[in-house]
Amino acid sequence: MATIKDIANRLGISTSTVSKGLNGASDISESLRQTVLDTAVELGYTTKQMRGKDRRKVCLFVENMDYETPEQFGYDIILGFRQVAFRENFDVTVFPVTPHIQAEEKYDTFMLKHGFVGGFMVGFALLDDWMSQFTATSIPTVLFDNYIRKNPAVASVGSDNLEGIDDAVVHLMKLGHRHIALINGSWRSCISEQRRQAYIDSMTAHNLPFSKGTMPYGYYVADSAKDHIDRLLSMGITAILCGNDLIASGVIEECRKRGVRIPEELSVVGFDDIPLSARLDPPLTTIRQDRTELGKSGFYTLHSLINHIPISRTMLRPQLIVRKSTAPVRPET
Amino acid sequence: MATIKDIANRLGISTSTVSKGLNGASDISESLRQTVLDTAVELGYTTKQMRGKDRRKVCLFVENMDYETPEQFGYDIILGFRQVAFRENFDVTVFPVTPHIQAEEKYDTFMLKHGFVGGFMVGFALLDDWMSQFTATSIPTVLFDNYIRKNPAVASVGSDNLEGIDDAVVHLMKLGHRHIALINGSWRSCISEQRRQAYIDSMTAHNLPFSKGTMPYGYYVADSAKDHIDRLLSMGITAILCGNDLIASGVIEECRKRGVRIPEELSVVGFDDIPLSARLDPPLTTIRQDRTELGKSGFYTLHSLINHIPISRTMLRPQLIVRKSTAPVRPET
Repeated sequence: MATIKDIANRLGISTSTVSKGLNGASDISESLRQTVLDTAVELGYTTKQMRGKDRRKVCLFVENMDYETPEQFGYDIILGFRQVAFRENFDVTVFPVTPHIQAEEKYDTFMLKHGFVGGFMVGFALLDDWMSQFTATSIPTVLFDNYIRKNPAVASVGSDNLEGIDDAVVHLMKLGHRHIALINGSWRSCISEQRRQAYIDSMTAHNLPFSKGTMPYGYYVADSAKDHIDRLLSMGITAILCGNDLIASGVIEECRKRGVRIPEELSVVGFDDIPLSARLDPPLTTIRQDRTELGKSGFYTLHSLINHIPISRTMLRPQLIVRKSTAPVRPET
Repeated sequence: MATIKDIANRLGISTSTVSKGLNGASDISESLRQTVLDTAVELGYTTKQMRGKDRRKVCLFVENMDYETPEQFGYDIILGFRQVAFRENFDVTVFPVTPHIQAEEKYDTFMLKHGFVGGFMVGFALLDDWMSQFTATSIPTVLFDNYIRKNPAVASVGSDNLEGIDDAVVHLMKLGHRHIALINGSWRSCISEQRRQAYIDSMTAHNLPFSKGTMPYGYYVADSAKDHIDRLLSMGITAILCGNDLIASGVIEECRKRGVRIPEELSVVGFDDIPLSARLDPPLTTIRQDRTELGKSGFYTLHSLINHIPISRTMLRPQLIVRKSTAPVRPET
């Protein structure tokens, strides 16, 4: 359990300033107060006010995603969501959900039973039991990286994959690359489908060659790279976009084993910009998703649904972070 | 200038309750207080707090759109925007902008000169001078029904046209229609392009025939109908989707002149659900855009941009309102 001292240490301010922030005193700035509150949420410090009974309850469900440490993809999403939920007087329960739980109890029943006025779903797959129930639920529900048609109680939040992938393709083109592949994540995932379509659209728009063979599916793990790397290299691919940074780390590892130098012989681009990617050798060029902002937008979108504003989709712009894993294409010998 | 009495009359509550709402007294409910404030904004009543100097300023620019009375398309958008801006302590200037003003002064210059921290643009056309400047502006800017690629300072707000058009097509299909046309608004408008694409996607998905001739452009006015109606009827079209309710009212009028009965001989669907559409003869089936909610989402999206959350797009779900202008297709004789 965090103390006021922990918050003061983290921020490098006095404990009395922290107290002022927590108690809403008027002689500290609004932005410092907000920082104190955000840090309190992050460190798990709670005041009486934070535990007040008049706070409404929402539930954040996580599946297929690691979120325990700041290194992991889900951590910042959940933190951003909790930080803005707190400001708006909502209590957040983070609930790791399994296919078993979904099979056992209907989504609406679960929500009503526990008094949750809204849900935020992170990491769900298209085949999950609850996904089919979202077409008919009347409970305000926001899906990260998934989309449900025509239900005004359900909205989607995610990155603009079209722009992200196109930014990466344009970056590689400027370096002279034409033979660019995409090692995607799992099929039967909404987000994999979007990125595949984004790759097709971007390659088409720039008149670059592609085929079914240049856009294989895999899984969102490092191990996924080894199934495709030999075939792609033998096809004359000079740059690989990856469905996430873990796949990209796998590509780098497999290339090292084979003596293929990155970026001299192959350029590699990740997706997400998890903390790991800056520490890879070479540091990874990647399409950054700001996960704290995605989490915040998740809450804002849920809040809109709770207030009967029928948002269908909130999209955030990703940002290409250029590091050392991409370089000019090697002249053909 | 509205008085407390005006607000009380509008809401059917006492003036003392209105005062409590305006002054943030603790013995009225939060939702009633919000209603009082929203009504104060709507009626133009301002308190000292509302005119406070510490409020940040945003500008709402309107072009090519009527907004002076509740009958007109822009009215509720602007009202919704102003209502939530007020709650968040922003001052809103509504500024009717012309091509001349745009040619005379750069957008960024205008904003900086007047101390606006953000802009909301309603009714802009693709060829407007400022539209090309939005690709590079660093001032938080939200475009209603327009989209700018890859600038993290600019976001888009609008309805999900794909769902709206598809709802209407499915409704007509269930009534037996197969030959469905779209009389669109102006070309060189982002929203006309989106609706055209939505029509193409929906007709394709449901295996219905269409051609360039079944999706003519016009203008977003009633007069637009007369240029197309004879040709569409001679092609065997049995149902017409319209780019907005005004075009639909024109279709109804032209059919009356020609003795074509609606809905018996031709089904007509509008877009927007402006107040007029329920009073047409027959009352119009239309794709409703909740303009108050669009205005509110416009502000929330702008607020996110001001807080450096790089939203690219917020989309709201439209809703098909079925009235009397659509009916089962007449059996072929």
